This record gives sequence, structure tokens and C-alpha cells, in this order.
Amino acid sequence: MNYSELSLKMHEENKGKLEVNSKVKVESKEDLSTAYTPGVAEPCRKINENPENVYKYTAKGNLVAVVSDGTAVLGLGDIGPKAAIPVMEGKAILFKQFANVDAFPICLDTKDVDEIVKTVKYLAPTFGGINLEDISAPRCFEIEKRLKEELDIPVFHDDQHGTAIVVLAGLINALKLVGKNIETANIVINGAGSAGISICKLLLLSGAKNIVLCDIKGALVEGANWMNDAQKTIAEKTNRNFEKGNLNEIIKRKDVFIGVSAPNIVTSNMVKTMNEDAIIFAMANPTPEIMPEEAKKGGAKVIATGRSDYPNQINNVLAFPGIFRGALDVRATDINEEMKLATAKAIASIVSDEELSEDYIIPNAFNKKVVEVVAKEIGKAAKETGVTRI
Amino acid sequence: MNYSELSLKMHEENKGKLEVNSKVKVESKEDLSTAYTPGVAEPCRKINENPENVYKYTAKGNLVAVVSDGTAVLGLGDIGPKAAIPVMEGKAILFKQFANVDAFPICLDTKDVDEIVKTVKYLAPTFGGINLEDISAPRCFEIEKRLKEELDIPVFHDDQHGTAIVVLAGLINALKLVGKNIETANIVINGAGSAGISICKLLLLSGAKNIVLCDIKGALVEGANWMNDAQKTIAEKTNRNFEKGNLNEIIKRKDVFIGVSAPNIVTSNMVKTMNEDAIIFAMANPTPEIMPEEAKKGGAKVIATGRSDYPNQINNVLAFPGIFRGALDVRATDINEEMKLATAKAIASIVSDEELSEDYIIPNAFNKKVVEVVAKEIGKAAKETGVTRI
Repeated sequence: MNYSELSLKMHEENKGKLEVNSKVKVESKEDLSTAYTPGVAEPCRKINENPENVYKYTAKGNLVAVVSDGTAVLGLGDIGPKAAIPVMEGKAILFKQFANVDAFPICLDTKDVDEIVKTVKYLAPTFGGINLEDISAPRCFEIEKRLKEELDIPVFHDDQHGTAIVVLAGLINALKLVGKNIETANIVINGAGSAGISICKLLLLSGAKNIVLCDIKGALVEGANWMNDAQKTIAEKTNRNFEKGNLNEIIKRKDVFIGVSAPNIVTSNMVKTMNEDAIIFAMANPTPEIMPEEAKKGGAKVIATGRSDYPNQINNVLAFPGIFRGALDVRATDINEEMKLATAKAIASIVSDEELSEDYIIPNAFNKKVVEVVAKEIGKAAKETGVTRI
Repeated sequence: MNYSELSLKMHEENKGKLEVNSKVKVESKEDLSTAYTPGVAEPCRKINENPENVYKYTAKGNLVAVVSDGTAVLGLGDIGPKAAIPVMEGKAILFKQFANVDAFPICLDTKDVDEIVKTVKYLAPTFGGINLEDISAPRCFEIEKRLKEELDIPVFHDDQHGTAIVVLAGLINALKLVGKNIETANIVINGAGSAGISICKLLLLSGAKNIVLCDIKGALVEGANWMNDAQKTIAEKTNRNFEKGNLNEIIKRKDVFIGVSAPNIVTSNMVKTMNEDAIIFAMANPTPEIMPEEAKKGGAKVIATGRSDYPNQINNVLAFPGIFRGALDVRATDINEEMKLATAKAIASIVSDEELSEDYIIPNAFNKKVVEVVAKEIGKAAKETGVTRI
């Protein structure tokens, strides 16, 4: 059976993947009077006296909402809130299994930005954090921005930042391996949607200076009139040589190609036009921009994809469980840029200099050290930037 | 330790009472590819093709939202959404432990009726049913009415209907015991808020003809100008002898007193003015309208309270777990009046004629037969009234 068939079978046999359980037993009158009325009135009173007690007496402090409107689900697009549930349940169980974070899917039956923002604000009392997921661009930018401003719990759009963080983690190690550095490396990012722009922002923050973003219409360049607002803003900080043309042109003499775009749009001949020891992160899913074998033929030195059947899998699961574990542990009010950078460095640090090789620039998704190290560094960065409440 | 102290300890040690778990394991690349990408795309596609498949491939079909705005929590009143969480978590774990229903607390940071209705509609794709809880009257009436009209999943305000159903169950057996019948019994209900009105409606539906509702201002009587809209409507169907006065007067020559009001407002002398073999349901919490010892002194034959330390506890937990178990099992689109009546009869039927006594008119909360019988009868009533989807 292939994964599609296996997955259908798993989902049907289990009726989804998620259940809600009790941490306490209710098997007697006494249990009932302690867990429920009349005893339960006392924790209610304590929270009413001091709202911070909600972290002491309820599940809030370990609870994350996985919020989607189903508009940009996997490669499937706008399939709506019901069809998005299997992905959000999947995300929720990964939170639990990787980081012991309780997470619950919230699939919203509205695409209106104002309504989504309001709804998440109304839901916020129950949750310790908000993970936005599979919301289409550019709506996702505004939703995240407004919720970050208005809520006192961390808000994180994983599709933007999760991928960006793991890409940066891999890139730190890949550049180390080929003896280049991020400040001088020439980088092309193909795909100027939310993931591409977010990767670009994080690379800029970590010191990259020479980045060109490409989209179907060609290189993003300041002054071009076909770009959306998010693209216009990022164009002012990238492509300072004002390169024009399509990916075929732009990829020439680059050190790094990062693809979050479409299958099979890069050929081995294109890779040949890149600088020596080229680094290729081809993350279109499930079929990458170029298959690793082809990239090798073109002379690429380090190749990463989103796939688990090749080395160097760029997988968000390396980031989001530890990020929320760490943020919840220190009751962070935000997940800021410094915390994202700290996460990327923490993930990269798991691969020791001795272990580092073309086929091992990024830890395996199941490496248990990852969550631990990321959570610790997130907590440290949160404290240093003053966004913790304990 | 008393229950308040025990409860604080339990809540603090466990950080709340609820957790979200995975029903499938994710311990290998293969697991990840089946539970998450790329395999998960397939159940998403199937649901996109046919929305009913959401019941086949997700947890929706067993998932209930316990929704509150924290405006009428226990006897504590309007303590807000955060302080309401311990109660909603409690409700959620009772759903699980009594009926294997997965339930999740949703405590909303708004008191606006329109906003609550919209928010619950936006959340609905994830859930198989909505349990409204601890929302103040008269807002709760409109919220429930509108959600029932607009959603295709069952919506049930437990504070209204749960209590009403269990009261009716107890009353069926109490009347049987004293050899009276509901059509001719004279009944006074004290407390004309959401619980009292809802009890009244269900008793009327089950054949009661002589009911007087009382509130602090006295008997509800058609034409009185101090009543709210809900009270005006119910006054047209009750008190057909146009009795006036306060409870002291109204309780005279009644067969049944049902209190959902305030502690210690009924005396044994008042009970003495009732008809022979008086039935007293004194459900103010934690201190009833009259303590069972006092009611006995007044000559009451059958006494029920909300307390677990006296016989005949009127406890919602006898109703809501089985109601939702049954409704989810047949994918009911509603929980209608016929289903509520069927539930009351089902609960009453658990007590056999041989077992029936003054101290045993209603099954114990932990009697495992209750959920089973209620769920079966709910399913049957749902099918007979055409509100099932399978």
C-alpha cells in the first residue's frame, strides 16, 4: 500500500487521530465532588480573584490551538475547513508526541480576516498559544500581525516561520560544510509567497546580504509594478543589484538555491550555471523543484528537500514542537525574531562538526535532543528579550 | 480536607484536568508519512469531494464543544471565561468518562449574543455537537435558538434541558410511588430563570396541566407586567387558575414543589400546607431550598436534592453523557423535545418497580446502565422524528 491508502485506512479505522482525555479519575462521588461541583467552584474563585491563576488550575498553560480556515492546505489549496481537519489533527498529535504539548484543531468556517481575528481573540482564554496553519497569503500576514498585537499569548504562523527556521538551520550547516558564509553568499529564493518571503526575512535577519526572490513573473525588483504589497516591501531589502529576468537567468552564479515553488522547474543544466559547491534546498512537495540525482548531475554539493526518503529533510517538525514547548514553559507572550533565530541555531547545533557531511546537515525529525535543545534556547531568548511572564 | 481544598490540590497538581492525545503512534518516518504528509492529503481530498466524509476520517463525529462565556457559572455568577475553565474542563472529562465522548472546553471572551452565535458557527466544522453551558438568561435562550436553526449538528444547553430531563425522570418515579399522575398533579416551580422555565416546558410536554411558576416577585400570572419575555410566554401556558402571591401562598395544596432558586427559603411549616404525600425537589446548590430533614418534618413523602450526600440526587450527569452519545451515534442533526422526553423516560426506567422507594427514585450517577439506555432511546427517538443522517 502507498501512503495515501495507508493514510485512508488509518484515518477510517481510528475515526481521526485525536482524542480528549481526563488527567484525573472520576469513579466515585468523592471524585465527582472534587473534579466537579461543589469543589470545582474553588479554583474558579481563585482565577476570578487573579486571572494569572488560570495557568495554575487549568490546562491553558499547555494548550495550543491549531487554527486554520482551510484556504491553503498542503498542495491542495482552498479545500475548506472540514477537509483541512485531517492536517490540523495531524499537527495536533505531532505537538503531543514530540513535545508533550496538548494541541487542538480549530478549523474555521470563515475566510474573512476580521472575523478570523475576532474569533481567535474570543477563543484565546482557553489556550496558552496559537499556531496558525495553512491560511493563504497575503491574508495570513495580516491575521498573524493583528493577533500578535492584540493577544498576550504567543501567536505563530508555522507555514511562514517554521519552514524559514529549519531552512536557516540547514543553511548554517551547509555553508559551514562548503566554507562559505551567509553574509557574502549569493542566494536565490524561488517562490515569493508566504514561505518564500518569510525565509527571506529570516535570512536577512541572520546576516544574508545578497538575496534575490523570484516568482513566476521573474525576479522581484524594487519598482516593478506587478508585485503585491508584501513583495514590494521585501523587494526594497533584496536584489540590490537590480537583477531582472526569470529563474533561468537569476540562478546563474548563485551559491544557494532555495525553492518553495513547484515541481521540476530546475534542471541539472541550470545547476551547472551556479557557483561551485552549490547548495540546493528544493522543497516543493511531494515533488521537489529538482530531484537530488539531477541536482548532483549539475554539480550541486549539498542537497536538501522536504522528503523523508532522501537525506537532509527540511521538516517543520524540527521546529514547532520545541518552539511551543519552550514558549509555554516560560509563559512567553510572543515568539519574536530573536527566538526564531535562536531556534535555527539550536537545530543546527545538534549536528556536530564531526558528524557534519553532505548527507547530514540537519538532524533527523525523530532525534529527541531537538525538542529539548530548542525549548531551552527559546526560553533563554524569550527571557533575554523580555517577553516572559514567569 | 474539604472539597474546596481537595479540588484546589487536584487542579494544581494536574494543571487542569484535560489533555489531548493521539489515537495513533508516530514513531517512525512511515508513521509520519501516514498520519501527516504526504499521506494525510488523501483523507483531505476525500472530504473535499464529499463533506460527509468528515465523519469517516476525522474525530468530528465523537467531538463535542463545551461552550461558555462564563456569565452564569455555578452559583458564582458572571466570573468570565478564564475563571469558567475549571467547570468546562470538568464537564469535558465527565463526557469522556461517562460516555466516551471527546469534549473540549471553549470559553469565549465575549458576552455579545451575535458574536457568540457567529463564533460557534465558525467553530462548528470541527465538532459533532455543541453543549452550551453556564450562559446567563435570557441570552442563553436566543443563543440556543439561533444555533439550533443555523447548524446541522445538535445544540443543547445543558443548564436548561439537562436539569429538566432529570427532574422529569425523578418526578415520573416519585408520582408512581405516591400513586398520583402528572396530568392532575398540582405543581409549583420556584425560580423562573432558564432552569425553571425549561423544567416547566418539559413537564407541560409530558402532560402536566397544573403548574405555577414562582419567582422572587411572586407567582407568574398572565398579564403581570413585571415579567421578562420568556416569563410572559410561559405564563400563558401555566397558572390557569390565576393564582397570585408569593411562594408562601402558592405552595399551599400543591402535590409537588420543584426548587431551582435559593437556599433555605422553604420551611417545614410551608411543607405542611401542601397536599398529602408531598414531593419536594429542592435543587439549590450547595444548600437546598429546604434540607431533607426539615422537609420530612413537614410531612414530605419523597425528597430529592442536587446533593450527593442525600438520597435521590438530581444530577445532570445522568442525562448529558448519554444524550450526546446517542445523538453522535446516529449523527443526529438536533436534540428535539421528543428526544428529551425519551431521555427522561429512559432514566426513570432504570429504577424497577421492585426497587422503587422513597430513597430510590432516580438511578445513581455511576450506574453504568444509564448511558447505555439513554443513548439507545435517544437514537430511537431521533430516528422516529427524522433528525438523523445515518
